[in-house]
Amino acid sequence: MELKVNLGKDSYSIFIENGIIGRAGDYIRNIFSGKRVMIVSDDNIFPLYGKQLSDSISSFYECHHLVLPHGETTKSFDSLPEIYTALLDAGITRSDLIIALGGGVIGDLTGFAAASFLRGVKFVQIPTSLLAQVDSSVGGKVAVDLPQGKNLVGAFFQPKLVLIDPSVLDTLNEHFIHDGMGEIIKYGCIWAKDLFRTLIEHTSFEDLKPILPEIIYRCVDIKRIVVEHDQFDTGERMLLNFGHTLAHTIEQYFHYERESHGEAVGIGMYQISLMAEKAGLTKPGTAEMIRKALEIYGLPYECGVAMEELTGAITRDKKNLNNRLNLILLEEIGKSFIHPETVSFFTEYADVI
Amino acid sequence: MELKVNLGKDSYSIFIENGIIGRAGDYIRNIFSGKRVMIVSDDNIFPLYGKQLSDSISSFYECHHLVLPHGETTKSFDSLPEIYTALLDAGITRSDLIIALGGGVIGDLTGFAAASFLRGVKFVQIPTSLLAQVDSSVGGKVAVDLPQGKNLVGAFFQPKLVLIDPSVLDTLNEHFIHDGMGEIIKYGCIWAKDLFRTLIEHTSFEDLKPILPEIIYRCVDIKRIVVEHDQFDTGERMLLNFGHTLAHTIEQYFHYERESHGEAVGIGMYQISLMAEKAGLTKPGTAEMIRKALEIYGLPYECGVAMEELTGAITRDKKNLNNRLNLILLEEIGKSFIHPETVSFFTEYADVI
Repeated sequence: MELKVNLGKDSYSIFIENGIIGRAGDYIRNIFSGKRVMIVSDDNIFPLYGKQLSDSISSFYECHHLVLPHGETTKSFDSLPEIYTALLDAGITRSDLIIALGGGVIGDLTGFAAASFLRGVKFVQIPTSLLAQVDSSVGGKVAVDLPQGKNLVGAFFQPKLVLIDPSVLDTLNEHFIHDGMGEIIKYGCIWAKDLFRTLIEHTSFEDLKPILPEIIYRCVDIKRIVVEHDQFDTGERMLLNFGHTLAHTIEQYFHYERESHGEAVGIGMYQISLMAEKAGLTKPGTAEMIRKALEIYGLPYECGVAMEELTGAITRDKKNLNNRLNLILLEEIGKSFIHPETVSFFTEYADVI
Repeated sequence: MELKVNLGKDSYSIFIENGIIGRAGDYIRNIFSGKRVMIVSDDNIFPLYGKQLSDSISSFYECHHLVLPHGETTKSFDSLPEIYTALLDAGITRSDLIIALGGGVIGDLTGFAAASFLRGVKFVQIPTSLLAQVDSSVGGKVAVDLPQGKNLVGAFFQPKLVLIDPSVLDTLNEHFIHDGMGEIIKYGCIWAKDLFRTLIEHTSFEDLKPILPEIIYRCVDIKRIVVEHDQFDTGERMLLNFGHTLAHTIEQYFHYERESHGEAVGIGMYQISLMAEKAGLTKPGTAEMIRKALEIYGLPYECGVAMEELTGAITRDKKNLNNRLNLILLEEIGKSFIHPETVSFFTEYADVI
């Protein structure tokens, strides 16, 4: 299955196919005529898929690789010099190519390294987590973390190609499935009642698996449409943040050690909809439907923290320009809107979430 | 005098006026409606112009500043965390503004910090060296150095406004004048026979000073035209590199400790034209005219190094894709062209330069 993201000269294709990693070279040939390729991956993923990818690339190009430690701490500003050094040592020039093989950490970090090295080197995303496949690998947002916070340094830098291999998800543990399912439910909530209905008509992730490539396709297609309308995140793209204001706050409150991103998004979507129902902004019963979907896929909908303990972090989020914030709310399942508010909204409509 | 750089949504104005630093706030008001401004400068420049700039900004905005050590070593990747921390401490968000007040080091470093912080914060260039006024502050190329080489990490990131105050040049020492005059002579060589004629009709920099604002205007206008045609440096913009392949090589050979950039460009322009005359590619006598211009403004035209000692570095320059390189040559004064070559050109047509 192919999807085309139309962004003028930054346009690119996304291919979704089981086993595509082992045929990557055939796809890359169509978009890249240079000499050298650098694969950046981590020590969880490279042992599983590095060889088949390298073999396919080596048929056409001089192929190098850099394997970093897995985990969130790798996505730090301090990881960049090691990547730049590897690129220089391999002789990568502006006419060569960088591939990110991994989850969101590797994709975001490698994407920023590619955006900034020699003012930009072509790059390809091969996402290997459900979250990266349906979300972070598409849209061109790349970033690294500073000690002071996540994603504080970054760029808008579109890949030349995204290759999504749903079959790699067989190797994921439950934690990473939850991460992706939170975002998949989000796409249903903000944009597609039919997708949401499909999700609640299944009984578990295992039950959903046979149609996962189609589900991924649908999610990526929604993200494509939103990104095409608002590449630089100044308007409509904010809809993708449904559930995320509370999610970021919860993640920060627990220092990213308890809820995964997808789990926190689950809680955020349910709780903000509950508040919005109370405020008369969302159709009654919507939160309950979100809770049902979260329960099917083993995601939490509450975290047991007092709202006023969480609001401090909301005022520090970079999206909350001049301490106003744009809440993303649902009119009903499948229809979302941007609602400007102040932080007091949270404490007015919730005690403990 | 106002110049408008037309780059679609990235368009911006350049104003060239004596004393404009003290009126900066009045110009910034027209392009920025946010709350906070961060001025980044160095400890040579800020004591001279920081107060008048801050006073003008403070009439309209909350004004912060960060003063870094002067000199090339400040333009390093390792300087970035200090800038990011200052931006975070000052509460700078995506809706605020960053000003670079200084020469090329401050402009390039601050520009990259602005490009990467929160995926991009608006920024304004106030260049205070002749080189930065006629070259680096216009065109959107920003970068920092790695230990392995200069400008290896960067971005294309256009400023929202450039304010050029020629009167600050009264405080420059001779070394920094040479730096700028090398590039000014270059604009005459590649694009404007009339500008070149004006330059050789004067007898010294002091003699040229009364018409310096017009000279700066002309140079910036040439750069504007070239950048508009080729924002991302994939074609015509290469013409701006006239003299630069040899210049970079000479600078590296002496570890950036002997010739300044402008001086090295002077040597590069003369020597490459001498070689091109021998190869029958440039009109005879052109190199001699360049030498005359260099001598008027106290710039060198030779450095006494054997060509084959210099060629190693040329093959490592990032612009020399796949070890081919594009030489910029003159047909005659005022007319330049791109000439694909191999490194052997240098050793074929020159022994010691």
